[in-house]
Amino acid sequence: MRCSVNTNTKNAVLNDVAARIEGDARRVQRANEEDLAAARDAGLSDAKLRRLALSDTSLAQMCAGLRQVAELPDPVGRVTSEYTVPSGLLVRKVRSPLGVILMIYEARPSVTVDAFALCFKSGNACFLKGGREAARTNAALAGLINAALAAHDVPRDVAGFLTTSDRNVLEELLTLDQYIDLVIPRGGVDLVRFVSKHARMPVVRHFQGVCHIFVDASADWDGAVEICATAKTSAPATCNAVEAVLVHQDIAREFIPRLVDRFGRDGVEVRGDVSVCALAERAIPATDEDWGREFLDLIVAVKVVSDIEAAIDHIRRFGSNHTDAILTTTEDHARLFTERVCSSCTLVNASTRFNDGFQLGLGAEIGISTSRLHAYGPMGLEELTTQRYVVRGAGQVR
Amino acid sequence: MRCSVNTNTKNAVLNDVAARIEGDARRVQRANEEDLAAARDAGLSDAKLRRLALSDTSLAQMCAGLRQVAELPDPVGRVTSEYTVPSGLLVRKVRSPLGVILMIYEARPSVTVDAFALCFKSGNACFLKGGREAARTNAALAGLINAALAAHDVPRDVAGFLTTSDRNVLEELLTLDQYIDLVIPRGGVDLVRFVSKHARMPVVRHFQGVCHIFVDASADWDGAVEICATAKTSAPATCNAVEAVLVHQDIAREFIPRLVDRFGRDGVEVRGDVSVCALAERAIPATDEDWGREFLDLIVAVKVVSDIEAAIDHIRRFGSNHTDAILTTTEDHARLFTERVCSSCTLVNASTRFNDGFQLGLGAEIGISTSRLHAYGPMGLEELTTQRYVVRGAGQVR
Repeated sequence: MRCSVNTNTKNAVLNDVAARIEGDARRVQRANEEDLAAARDAGLSDAKLRRLALSDTSLAQMCAGLRQVAELPDPVGRVTSEYTVPSGLLVRKVRSPLGVILMIYEARPSVTVDAFALCFKSGNACFLKGGREAARTNAALAGLINAALAAHDVPRDVAGFLTTSDRNVLEELLTLDQYIDLVIPRGGVDLVRFVSKHARMPVVRHFQGVCHIFVDASADWDGAVEICATAKTSAPATCNAVEAVLVHQDIAREFIPRLVDRFGRDGVEVRGDVSVCALAERAIPATDEDWGREFLDLIVAVKVVSDIEAAIDHIRRFGSNHTDAILTTTEDHARLFTERVCSSCTLVNASTRFNDGFQLGLGAEIGISTSRLHAYGPMGLEELTTQRYVVRGAGQVR
Repeated sequence: MRCSVNTNTKNAVLNDVAARIEGDARRVQRANEEDLAAARDAGLSDAKLRRLALSDTSLAQMCAGLRQVAELPDPVGRVTSEYTVPSGLLVRKVRSPLGVILMIYEARPSVTVDAFALCFKSGNACFLKGGREAARTNAALAGLINAALAAHDVPRDVAGFLTTSDRNVLEELLTLDQYIDLVIPRGGVDLVRFVSKHARMPVVRHFQGVCHIFVDASADWDGAVEICATAKTSAPATCNAVEAVLVHQDIAREFIPRLVDRFGRDGVEVRGDVSVCALAERAIPATDEDWGREFLDLIVAVKVVSDIEAAIDHIRRFGSNHTDAILTTTEDHARLFTERVCSSCTLVNASTRFNDGFQLGLGAEIGISTSRLHAYGPMGLEELTTQRYVVRGAGQVR
């Protein structure tokens, strides 16, 4: 990138985009209504329709998000470490943009705005390719972003909005490693596989979240029921929602009925193993496919396990390296679990829903990486930069 | 990985490998001599023969390197940051192995030992695939590593030594992203392209180093001549050796003859642009292919540039994001150069040869990454790990 935009201009553009979205809210929502109508006709699932819909609340969140990114410190140029080596060289590590980022995601218009904001603030250019079902909504948002860029004399090349869904065109795009530095696929298994197969540039995968909670024998029961239930019901279609609860056999007889009852009252379908179904009438038998499955809906799988080792083995086999939690008052078990389960985030006595850039203090996130390379877990502004060495000497040779 | 090896065992294995290499030095060198003889017959270039050869000194360096890695702190489990967020959660970022690393490199036996040491100490399993010209040497070294692993009851699966050079087999290997977490190609353009094209898992490229030094009008002349000359002669076949020197036109008339004279005395062939050839008889005319070329030999390209902007433009066009230096006493120019040239390492008044894990304080390196993702610049133990979140709560829900 030749052009580098200073921090004040970047922040002014972000605030301007928020103001334009607020000023043109009705037009954006009309475009969204057209997208929704077409998606309903095409038979899109309820979970997908929920992600596509732009309510007043989600528009307000979008604008709050833009202003929040404007408030965050600019990572570019930040010195992250500084030291002198024996040769006398002063070594600094400095944050620098990655370059050009291609983001491929589903029909979620909020991602268009969030991804633009984070890429732009971190000094990167971006190509944003959202799901075709959101085409009208994304076009309306892209128009507002381009107008804000033009109003501040920023070349509109810093953000490209792609509308094609032609897989041949995408395949071609994924070979252009001389122009694109990073691709972030964020969506279902098929999309991520497609991108991993064809991309010649680095890929950071924002894969599915098959999140587990293990309720240990020593767990606080009331707290455990509350965490398990809300980890599903507070946002069933998000990647950090719980998909499977594993319960220690020593407490199963009394705990399972309470848990299943609570899920039932909250409208959650429970798919249980044989033990669970024997203990709770409301549970329906789980099939083999229900383990390791991301339901993205008000459905949860529940299983009884013999001990913490069995829980860890189950998670290693069926988890997706996203988020897994243990509820326990046994310190040794908390330590064992967090050492042996190497997901991007492991939690002790807290909901899986906390694996989120905002909740973990990153300020915002472009998604949650389940790749171990570069960034593992929520990717915020810092994770959209690299660190390079800037060294000062006084004539040193070797 | 199921098996996790504790720090003391890892260090004992590394020291044991060093002792075994010393004890069996003659056998390793005989294998190397056979490799060298075959490589000479096959017409391998001098630069490649130099990389293949295992002298007493290089064996001693290999063993010193192993003991040095044993001395370095174990990165696995290290807490890199710790803070409490408003919800009351205690958030820690913890270093964790990447998993299984495939390394594909040229016929450099020292890389076999260095790469094993770094992957093993950082808790990763590795597959090491060295150039076929080093097959006998690598087999001898692999035998000693396996013996050391067995002596400490470490499963030999932690290190695999691949001997195939069949591109079809490599292609197949590069699709196994469910088993291999990272591939590091370290070698020429063709190798890196081949790997980038076929790999479905993340790739960190250890690409060629087309390193530049820009001698600004205000540079200290004696220091500049010394830095330019040694940046080539001290190790002409390494990736951080200088390949092109750019000289500010205001000092060219007097500086170029001194520079070319010094290169000549050190046995370095100078390929100059028209201005350089006009100022120094010894220089031979550079062709278009000489700009942006990694000579890996006692050859350097020299060019006169009109100002710092022209130098920066040249480096952006012909550099390889590896290492570039400015020699100047003008602070504004030092700042401009290090801001606009975003190579993995930019230096002010020091040799490009300092872009090296040991020289920059990392303790050791597996190579120098020219990918911006994950690690940019030297990759040491820390760069062979990821960071994951470990979160402690007290029943938090959201």
